[in-house]
Amino acid sequence: MTALPPALDKVATLLSRLPGVGKRSALRWAFHILGEPPSYARELQQALAELMQHVRFCSECHHLAEDERCPICRDPARDPTLLCIVEGVPDLLALERTGSYRGRYHVLHGALAPLKGIGPAQLRLGNLEERIANQGVSEVILATSADVEGEATALYLAKRLAPTGVNVTRIATGIPMGGELEYLDDHTLSRAIAGRIRFG
Amino acid sequence: MTALPPALDKVATLLSRLPGVGKRSALRWAFHILGEPPSYARELQQALAELMQHVRFCSECHHLAEDERCPICRDPARDPTLLCIVEGVPDLLALERTGSYRGRYHVLHGALAPLKGIGPAQLRLGNLEERIANQGVSEVILATSADVEGEATALYLAKRLAPTGVNVTRIATGIPMGGELEYLDDHTLSRAIAGRIRFG
Repeated sequence: MTALPPALDKVATLLSRLPGVGKRSALRWAFHILGEPPSYARELQQALAELMQHVRFCSECHHLAEDERCPICRDPARDPTLLCIVEGVPDLLALERTGSYRGRYHVLHGALAPLKGIGPAQLRLGNLEERIANQGVSEVILATSADVEGEATALYLAKRLAPTGVNVTRIATGIPMGGELEYLDDHTLSRAIAGRIRFG
Repeated sequence: MTALPPALDKVATLLSRLPGVGKRSALRWAFHILGEPPSYARELQQALAELMQHVRFCSECHHLAEDERCPICRDPARDPTLLCIVEGVPDLLALERTGSYRGRYHVLHGALAPLKGIGPAQLRLGNLEERIANQGVSEVILATSADVEGEATALYLAKRLAPTGVNVTRIATGIPMGGELEYLDDHTLSRAIAGRIRFG
């Protein structure tokens, strides 16, 4: 036996297709799985089956869904004229937890990162303009992260959506609540100064 | 839906148990798997099932095996008095490809790395002394890597095996075949000088 058993090689090859995973790590994990109690692989198989069976993405906003459309897109109480664009489902969930947003979402499943090969075609943008037109959206809120990739994505979207005539806004950057100026980074502080609003 | 679906969370939790994987990467991969064609998850389930069904580790040397003992441990033509200790199965396979070693192996499935929590108890050392005694091993060849962890492991094993009275040797370090001195690192070059042998 001077070659890897096909099953081991297959597991490693499949794991190496996950984003950011190299063949070496993948092979190490295949060995690790083999060395674990069999319950580990069994649970993983089971969880994968359930994942593919019970969870999918909403055909409209690309949020997690158990049907064709997610509960938010189906909810008639949500304002269809407000559309908040987020990078990922965890961001959407964070916004939902605040309870302060009653519009709909559009989940990109990523942010522009040319060096990682993520361009507009890799984001779920195909039906964005169509949604804006069909749902009578009046404001698109760009809620991508305040890091380089999130900012680049926001700039790209603002430019792309300009021809639609929709109002495009960006969530505020500034000092976080409870944040002490002394410990904030310069960049956040500059943004907070530049973005100051009338008070009192 | 302001929490993650249980199946998604479960896949992420299981993936995060792989060595060196954090919860954030694991969650990203769970989303990635969900976004792939269903054939990906299906193939991975199938490969995991086959891996656990058809591949295991030899109860003697911890090499890959399809039965209780691997083909090398079962082969009566292999010299039982020579035992070569390697860090992993890929190392064993590399040595086998050379065809120049006819003894048996002992696969550690790792190297000592205290900072990563890998001590002697995490390596497959439990039956090492027993094998040396029972198989009448006369020489143990330490074929761990020439990096910090491999060297530390070799030093540990040499010390641990001293009471058994077995001859312990270490594979040679020096300039690789085809290696040009000019481009070699100082450390390899020093080792090659220190390890010089009589010639001609």
